[in-house]
Amino acid sequence: MHEFQLINRYFSKLTSKNKNSLNLNDDVFFDKSKKLVVSVDTYVEGTHFINFKKPDLVIKKIIRSSISDIICKGVKPKYYFIAGSGNKKSFTPTNLKKISKSLKQEQNKYNIFLCGGDTTYSDKLSFTVTCIGFSQKIIFRNNAKLNDDIYITGNLGDSFAGLNILKKKIYTNSLLNRYFENKYYLPNLHLKLSKKLLSFANTSIDVSDGLITDLEKLINKQKLSYNINLNSIPISQNLKKLIIQKKLNKLSYISRGDDYQILFTANSAKSRIINKTAKSLGIKISKIGKICSNSQKSKIIDQKGNKIDVKTKGYFHRF
Amino acid sequence: MHEFQLINRYFSKLTSKNKNSLNLNDDVFFDKSKKLVVSVDTYVEGTHFINFKKPDLVIKKIIRSSISDIICKGVKPKYYFIAGSGNKKSFTPTNLKKISKSLKQEQNKYNIFLCGGDTTYSDKLSFTVTCIGFSQKIIFRNNAKLNDDIYITGNLGDSFAGLNILKKKIYTNSLLNRYFENKYYLPNLHLKLSKKLLSFANTSIDVSDGLITDLEKLINKQKLSYNINLNSIPISQNLKKLIIQKKLNKLSYISRGDDYQILFTANSAKSRIINKTAKSLGIKISKIGKICSNSQKSKIIDQKGNKIDVKTKGYFHRF
Repeated sequence: MHEFQLINRYFSKLTSKNKNSLNLNDDVFFDKSKKLVVSVDTYVEGTHFINFKKPDLVIKKIIRSSISDIICKGVKPKYYFIAGSGNKKSFTPTNLKKISKSLKQEQNKYNIFLCGGDTTYSDKLSFTVTCIGFSQKIIFRNNAKLNDDIYITGNLGDSFAGLNILKKKIYTNSLLNRYFENKYYLPNLHLKLSKKLLSFANTSIDVSDGLITDLEKLINKQKLSYNINLNSIPISQNLKKLIIQKKLNKLSYISRGDDYQILFTANSAKSRIINKTAKSLGIKISKIGKICSNSQKSKIIDQKGNKIDVKTKGYFHRF
Repeated sequence: MHEFQLINRYFSKLTSKNKNSLNLNDDVFFDKSKKLVVSVDTYVEGTHFINFKKPDLVIKKIIRSSISDIICKGVKPKYYFIAGSGNKKSFTPTNLKKISKSLKQEQNKYNIFLCGGDTTYSDKLSFTVTCIGFSQKIIFRNNAKLNDDIYITGNLGDSFAGLNILKKKIYTNSLLNRYFENKYYLPNLHLKLSKKLLSFANTSIDVSDGLITDLEKLINKQKLSYNINLNSIPISQNLKKLIIQKKLNKLSYISRGDDYQILFTANSAKSRIINKTAKSLGIKISKIGKICSNSQKSKIIDQKGNKIDVKTKGYFHRF
C-alpha cells in the first residue's frame, strides 16, 4: 500500500472536523487563526540516509529536508524539535559533538532554534523532526490554475548522482565525487525566495520524492494535467558531463528526488516579476512546462517532440 | 550516559539565544508571545511498549502519554501529529483500522485533532507524537517554593503491576489481570483538572519515569530537598491486595513510572482550594510530603519513622 493510500483510507477522516488540517493532503499543517505552520518528518537509517558514517552531514541533510517543507510554502521556519532513536554506536560522544556542531551551523544559516525533542534507545537509528513557522498565509497544494506556467528552482538530479556515487553504483573522479556527494548531503534551500513566492506562486511543493511524483502530488485533487519539456528541466554542467560520459538517462535522474528545489506554478502574467526576483536574489528559476486541462493526459515531451513515458516516478513508502 | 547528561552536554547550548526554550529542561516548549505549547515524544517497540499485539491499546497509551505532558502543565492539548515507522507486519489493514478507530476514540475523549505526521518504512516499529496546545501561561518545572506541600493525583503503581502481568512476571486472577493491564494501557488523564492547576500549583510534572525520578526532575535546578511519607503515597485497593498477596515492595512499585498522574507542589494556604477542587471534579488528590531546604537531604519516611533508601528510582534512557 502506498503511504498516500494509507493516509486517505485510514487517517484522513480523523481530520474531518478540523478545517485547518488540509485533510492531511499537504506537506504542512496550517492554522490560519493562530498563524501556525507545522511539518513533521521521519528519517530512518537505510531508507532516508544510507548510514551514519558522516553524522555531521546526515544531520544537516535531515534539518534541511525538514525546513524545506515549510520554506517551499512561503514561510520562514522558526523552531525545530528533534527526536532521535539510536544506540551507543550511533550516539557516541564524538558523534554527539558532531551532531551538536552541525545543528549549531544550520541554526546560524537558517535562523532557527532547537526547542525540544526526545532521545530514546533503539537498535534502529531514526530521527523525527518537527518544524514550526508562523505566517498569515501559505501557498497550498492543489491550487494550480489552467494555463499556469510550471517553474522549478536550481538544478535537479545532482543529489541522485551523489547517492549513486555513495552507493558505488557510479565511479568518477574525486572532484566530481565531492561535488555530487555535497549535493546529496547539503541541498541548497532558497530561504530568501520563500516570502517572495507568496506574491506570485499559485501552488508549490518541494521536490523530495522526484519531479514527476511531486508534480502529480501538487495537483492530485485537481482536474488538471501537465505538459513538461524535458529539455527545459535544469541540470548542472557536472550532471550533463556525467550523463554523456556514463550514458545515463536524464529523465530517470531528475525523477528520483532528494533535490529539495521548489516546484511551483504561476500565471503567465507573473513571468516578468519571477525573472526579476530570480535575478535580484541570484537564484536560478526555470520555466519547464504548463498546466493543461484534463481533456489531455499529462505528458513529457523530449527535444524531438516525442511524448515519453515516465517509468521511474519517484520514491514511495510501501507497506 | 543518561539522556539528561546527553541533553545538557550537547544540546542545551543550542537554545541559548532563545529565552522561550526553557533550556530543554522541561517536558514542553512554551513560546509566551505566541501562547504556544509543544511536546515531542518517541515510543519504540520493546522499550516503551512491549509489543504490537494490541495496536488499539498501544496507540491509546501513546496518545495519552503524549498529551499528558501538556495537561500536567495546566494546558489543554489541541492538535497532535503522529509519525509512525514500521513494516507490513505492523501496518496490516486490520491494524491500521484499529489504529484509526483508537485515534478517533481518543480524539473524542480529549477533544484533540490529528493534523499531520509521517509514515515511513522501518523494520523497527516506533512512533513520534508531537502535541500542541495554546495557553497564556504554563506551570514550569523548578518553581517549587520552600515548605510547599507535595501532591499527587490518582494512584501510583497500578501500571507497573500491569506491565509485570503482561510480562508474565506476576500471576493473578483474570479479573485483576484485566484491571492492571487496563491501568497499564489506559492511564486516566485529568483533563478537567488541567486549567484549575494554574491557580494553585507552583510547579508540576507528570509521573512518567517514576515518582522519585520525576520528583527529582521537578526540582533538579533548585537548592531544595523533599520529604515524602511512604504511607501517604496513594495506591489502589487492588494493588494493596497484590502487595500483600505477593509480598511486593510498595516503594519499588510506585517508583517505576508509566502512571501519568500529576505531581505538583503548592503553598500550604492552597490546601483548602485543592481539596475543594478534588471533590468537585471527583479526582483523588493526595498530599504526600513537603518541599524542604537543602540543608537536609531528600528523604522518604516509612510508617515507623525510618528513613529509607530509594533503590529503583525509575527509568532512564542510557546511551
